[in-house]
Amino acid sequence: MSEALSPKKDLEDVQADVREVQELLRRHRLVETAAERSQMPKHELVESAVHKQNLARLRAKLDVMHPADIAYVLESLPLGDRLAVWSLVKAERDGEILLEVSDAVRETLIRSMDSEELVAAAEQLEADEIADLAPDLPRDVIQDVFQALPIEEREQLRAAMSYPEDAVGALMDFEVVSVREAVTMEAVTRYLRRFDRLPNHTDQLFVVDRDERLKGVLPLSTLIVSDLDRTVEQVMARDMVTVHPDDKAQDAANAFQRYDLVSAAVVDPSGKLLGRVTVDKVVDFVRTRTESELLTQAGLREEEDIFSSVWASVRNRWSWLAINLITAFIASRVIGAFEGSIEKLVALAALMPIVAGIGGNSGNQTITMIVRGIALGQVQNDHGRKLLAKELGVSLANGLIWGGMLGLIAYWLYHKVSLGLVMTAAMTLNLLLAASAGVLIPLTMLRLGRDPALGSSVLITAITDSGGFFIFLGLATLFLV
Amino acid sequence: MSEALSPKKDLEDVQADVREVQELLRRHRLVETAAERSQMPKHELVESAVHKQNLARLRAKLDVMHPADIAYVLESLPLGDRLAVWSLVKAERDGEILLEVSDAVRETLIRSMDSEELVAAAEQLEADEIADLAPDLPRDVIQDVFQALPIEEREQLRAAMSYPEDAVGALMDFEVVSVREAVTMEAVTRYLRRFDRLPNHTDQLFVVDRDERLKGVLPLSTLIVSDLDRTVEQVMARDMVTVHPDDKAQDAANAFQRYDLVSAAVVDPSGKLLGRVTVDKVVDFVRTRTESELLTQAGLREEEDIFSSVWASVRNRWSWLAINLITAFIASRVIGAFEGSIEKLVALAALMPIVAGIGGNSGNQTITMIVRGIALGQVQNDHGRKLLAKELGVSLANGLIWGGMLGLIAYWLYHKVSLGLVMTAAMTLNLLLAASAGVLIPLTMLRLGRDPALGSSVLITAITDSGGFFIFLGLATLFLV
Repeated sequence: MSEALSPKKDLEDVQADVREVQELLRRHRLVETAAERSQMPKHELVESAVHKQNLARLRAKLDVMHPADIAYVLESLPLGDRLAVWSLVKAERDGEILLEVSDAVRETLIRSMDSEELVAAAEQLEADEIADLAPDLPRDVIQDVFQALPIEEREQLRAAMSYPEDAVGALMDFEVVSVREAVTMEAVTRYLRRFDRLPNHTDQLFVVDRDERLKGVLPLSTLIVSDLDRTVEQVMARDMVTVHPDDKAQDAANAFQRYDLVSAAVVDPSGKLLGRVTVDKVVDFVRTRTESELLTQAGLREEEDIFSSVWASVRNRWSWLAINLITAFIASRVIGAFEGSIEKLVALAALMPIVAGIGGNSGNQTITMIVRGIALGQVQNDHGRKLLAKELGVSLANGLIWGGMLGLIAYWLYHKVSLGLVMTAAMTLNLLLAASAGVLIPLTMLRLGRDPALGSSVLITAITDSGGFFIFLGLATLFLV
Repeated sequence: MSEALSPKKDLEDVQADVREVQELLRRHRLVETAAERSQMPKHELVESAVHKQNLARLRAKLDVMHPADIAYVLESLPLGDRLAVWSLVKAERDGEILLEVSDAVRETLIRSMDSEELVAAAEQLEADEIADLAPDLPRDVIQDVFQALPIEEREQLRAAMSYPEDAVGALMDFEVVSVREAVTMEAVTRYLRRFDRLPNHTDQLFVVDRDERLKGVLPLSTLIVSDLDRTVEQVMARDMVTVHPDDKAQDAANAFQRYDLVSAAVVDPSGKLLGRVTVDKVVDFVRTRTESELLTQAGLREEEDIFSSVWASVRNRWSWLAINLITAFIASRVIGAFEGSIEKLVALAALMPIVAGIGGNSGNQTITMIVRGIALGQVQNDHGRKLLAKELGVSLANGLIWGGMLGLIAYWLYHKVSLGLVMTAAMTLNLLLAASAGVLIPLTMLRLGRDPALGSSVLITAITDSGGFFIFLGLATLFLV
């Protein structure tokens, strides 16, 4: 009784599949380790019944699993186990699985394959899928795959590879089913019945004229409820969302989300139908993008295979540490300039990180709000004054509340009213600085046509650190020392 | 010539729509301001031709816009303008637009409506949609809506409202089209033709027995290519993903992404079909969730209407600032304990923030990796040792590279070899502390059955700050002072 015949698949069944593979793998490893311990020669192990049975069961399990599930298992395994499982996967499934794994894990799998295996894997895929893999494949493999493709697909591959990763063209596929305006529902139905299956995510047919120009769309759900003698022209929808291959993928994703689309036509400037984008590609794109946003916020250059080598991790993380080292060094020099004051009143050394830290937190809150508003298109340049006024108001309130409280604490610790007052004033001023920078940095970047999300968090922390030290130690030098 | 008849809609057209509304609104405002300046009485303004014409054009424009586009416009407008536009929207569209706007903006719109308007708006919606709005509606409005519903929908509303926000039940709708196993394709086709339209995102029909138990699914694309005399039983798919209403929405979202689904059946434990989940709801869920993750990382309690009042913002942000104030206070007390050493060697005050800061950055990199690995199910408890070893290795490498460099800089600034050595040692130790905490905090939370993402960034920064100050000043006290 094969898995594919099971009546249905709960979410838990999926998890169970994964655990089963891990368990089979563990048993397989146990036998191997036992063999090694008892110094059994390798060939005897390979011949042994237990070993053969374990491998056979693992292979059988993998054969009935969905490629995405196998990808998930591969991602969850340390490198050695991962390659052991990978070698048991049927060669004809290599391509679809490579498409599903994360970039970092894909690299480890591709490194374990020779050119011949890679060419074979790529040849099982559609042109748009090969284009997705292409950046990770060796040049000679791509060359070989390219040669082996029929002319039409070769053109498609060339087109798909020509678009940058964040353009609609990179999400596009070529599996469009198109019909003409003049034909009847009956004719369409007969035409479709000649297919073995429709391409995945076919929720609508594209209506084109003889020059392949898009005239409208015919949703399957409309086709199904329409009378057979009506024509496509009579029932098709003319009001539809179309995208261009050069549009930003993020804009297309927003449209999919806003209008709840399953597929959308991709057309060239003259309105000619080039292909389509489907919701699964959009979901993948959005997921990858938000992941990379979260990672960038934490200072990781890219998605990291958690089982990668120490060296790979050091390389992935060094740039962020280097930048922070520079900003920390600058802040340190600001403090250095006030060493005389600190020597006279050492309490300053203990209190100054509070002023800097809270400024950083508050500034990050502001900048996150503004950057998000810009990304959603809710913030325009002419809102600057309004937003600045609001954020300054928030900072003033926070400065008086929290700064006042800290002033009291400073007084309580060091029994100096003036120290408490300097603390409150410095907190308030640093929060105002944080608010101004939090509004002005992203708006300035927007005006300069740059991505406001990039590096804004580092920049504001640098400003509030150095600024906080300067304000606090400066005020202290003026009024206390 | 109405917008709805335009042959197609580019992404740019959407932006143009929005700009057009903003432009019309600006003109409308200009007239109002001019009237105020010239002290024209209100009733004369309202009577004036320009004013009437402006409003008529705005209203006409809004009438042909997609509800999601109107929601977008509303979100992009400051409160006064927002309510002006909202008052121009046709009352029968209020419900669908309220569904589309963000929580924070929805609140401002609902506050501007009276009970009667709210009841009218809710009554235009399906049961599952009313359930989405319910948390924001006043209790008496929900009561009234509930009374007005037919029995069946009342039950559905009760069911939909009973699930927590992060359960599959909260994403479920009840618009399922179901068929029996024994009937032919021909009969199914005839049955479907009786519909005016199929529910949105109907990519498959659900096959149920006489007790409403799910037996399989019939994808529309299979129906369309199948011979008319075959039965549902012969062509339906039995291998499908089903979810339970109590499943976590995030797990369902993972399944949609992994298997590229457009819809999935929701069944109860006995296999009875309760409803379905569609990809648009899943996309909305994922988007809201990642947004809130990004906001939480930046210390914002929830999505904030960027045009909200100062006071609302202060409330949204205070808890994070309070927590950071406490951790900053603790770090400050650690420094306070070493004031004697700082008095003797004031260079310590200038160097200590570097040690603390870089530790925090490195710890956040580690914890982000691990938390993400846990969320994707790639990290299990028994990987702890392996991951800890790797992260300690990365930290050791970074400590020697960056710590060594900083040691040289400290020597260069203060001409003390011992100070440089203490700097390098402190950096390395703090990075090792950061790595240990970065691995152990999320794994411990996992073992305790808590969400590892929650608060882990604050916790690790607190540890590396206080720890960094303690290590650096402690070593300095031992070896330098």
